[in-house]
Amino acid sequence: MSAGLRDRAAARFAELQEAICAGVESLDGTASFREDPWDYAGGEGGGVTRVLAEGAVFEKGGVNVSAVAGTLAPRLAERLGTTPRPFFAAGVSLVLHPRSPRVPTAHMNVRYLETEGDDGRAWFGGGADLTPYYLERDDARHFHAVLRHACERHPAVADYPTFKRQCDEYFFLPHRGEARGVGGVFFDYLTGDLDATFAFVSDVGAAFLPAYAPIVERRRDEPWGEAERRWQLVRRGRYVEFNLVHDRGTAFGLETGGRTESILMSLPPLVRWDYDHAPEAGGREAELLEVLRAPVDWAGG
Amino acid sequence: MSAGLRDRAAARFAELQEAICAGVESLDGTASFREDPWDYAGGEGGGVTRVLAEGAVFEKGGVNVSAVAGTLAPRLAERLGTTPRPFFAAGVSLVLHPRSPRVPTAHMNVRYLETEGDDGRAWFGGGADLTPYYLERDDARHFHAVLRHACERHPAVADYPTFKRQCDEYFFLPHRGEARGVGGVFFDYLTGDLDATFAFVSDVGAAFLPAYAPIVERRRDEPWGEAERRWQLVRRGRYVEFNLVHDRGTAFGLETGGRTESILMSLPPLVRWDYDHAPEAGGREAELLEVLRAPVDWAGG
Repeated sequence: MSAGLRDRAAARFAELQEAICAGVESLDGTASFREDPWDYAGGEGGGVTRVLAEGAVFEKGGVNVSAVAGTLAPRLAERLGTTPRPFFAAGVSLVLHPRSPRVPTAHMNVRYLETEGDDGRAWFGGGADLTPYYLERDDARHFHAVLRHACERHPAVADYPTFKRQCDEYFFLPHRGEARGVGGVFFDYLTGDLDATFAFVSDVGAAFLPAYAPIVERRRDEPWGEAERRWQLVRRGRYVEFNLVHDRGTAFGLETGGRTESILMSLPPLVRWDYDHAPEAGGREAELLEVLRAPVDWAGG
Repeated sequence: MSAGLRDRAAARFAELQEAICAGVESLDGTASFREDPWDYAGGEGGGVTRVLAEGAVFEKGGVNVSAVAGTLAPRLAERLGTTPRPFFAAGVSLVLHPRSPRVPTAHMNVRYLETEGDDGRAWFGGGADLTPYYLERDDARHFHAVLRHACERHPAVADYPTFKRQCDEYFFLPHRGEARGVGGVFFDYLTGDLDATFAFVSDVGAAFLPAYAPIVERRRDEPWGEAERRWQLVRRGRYVEFNLVHDRGTAFGLETGGRTESILMSLPPLVRWDYDHAPEAGGREAELLEVLRAPVDWAGG
């Protein structure tokens, strides 16, 4: 559809990867990203996965870019309401799992997709969301306020209240009756003015560090013990359940023959599943669950 | 379709739960099952989940029976090639996760399903499979030989070579190119002589302890260290990936409003995801992977 937009989007996503990795390294203080370039087995192109492990702040983190072209698998084509046909997909995707249960896990992804042919389409999608283990209202408000501001700079193509609601709806585990975290923004199939939309998703990528880094800095030195760590590992189980059972990006990647390790880099380093784990009533763990079961308007409607 | 068979199957599954739990407790030596009865939120009936944790041998284990009736959800009905209509499902399902990486994880499930209406059907399904962390050929041979023997007692309805092949095909992770373990038997939609099939699946349930217990006894006192434990936790990640991405029983349960904790009791207690973990060439970990990538004929064709 637009070779120019393909190239510009892929270049911008690579630039975001570079800037975010530098910011995360500086935030961590000790760990550095290891780079793993790969070719797309299902067609043309490939990507660069950058991962860190066992940092001072981050137990595991990954920032992945890819730009691939191939043919849609039948099941995937059906889900997109089209027929098997050539596609192009580029994106940058990151997940950061801090070691401390006091620091939230964070995720951000922006992507550009095209399908070719007579009724070919091109669209952007993406979002960012925050998954705390302990509720800190100020953190949730800050994260949302930064994302709201990014939306408000692009009123022709972005609407924070809609994208916030979509985030609550998307990052929801029906079998648990719980949101994955305190949300953020989520948008997909943005097919309108593509240049304006590109500027918006580019700003969402740029907003990630300003939205997340202050929270990390505020929480990284707070004390925690074995009980908090166990709660974090149990909650990480929900993260795995969401990513493997519900996440469209994960399914898209695995079904299009994407690189498994780059897709599943999002999974936490260490996870627990205890049978029927239930936090004590009235405690800080139960306080988090309340908010996960009834989304809050963190940054105004 | 057959109220008599419904009742007989449910009663037999409860009997299997009782016998297997007693056998597992005796094998463990210290842990005992805790019982958790539940009602089916999606319709009538319910089940009894029995779980143990932190035993001498078993880090986590669950044996679940259920007998529920409701209406098929549209997506599920479509997958079964039918329309939304009343169904009945009963089964016994177990997963045992030993603490020692020297002792394999094991799974067994037998189930009976009916759909009602003009073209209503009734069928049995199930299977048993073994997931070792280190390959012990004698263990795989023993497990398969016992299951083969169970099949051979019911030649009219069971065929070990077919069910063994189906197990290799079913418990396979395409995105990893690996089987979940050394297999066993798997069968589904057995709609033939239902009384003879019931006798067969009943024998598969009864074969579980004779197939698994001798392996546990043989391996439980073998030494292991941190490296073996880490490998076990990484491999448990594959178990989670299979159950959440591919397992039909898990999907069926979650989609029919089954009890989440009873369905996800199958997930291991503690799991690792390391980015791009690869075992040393020529080691015992790599030896396991070779067999997972090319299934072996353990008990003759």
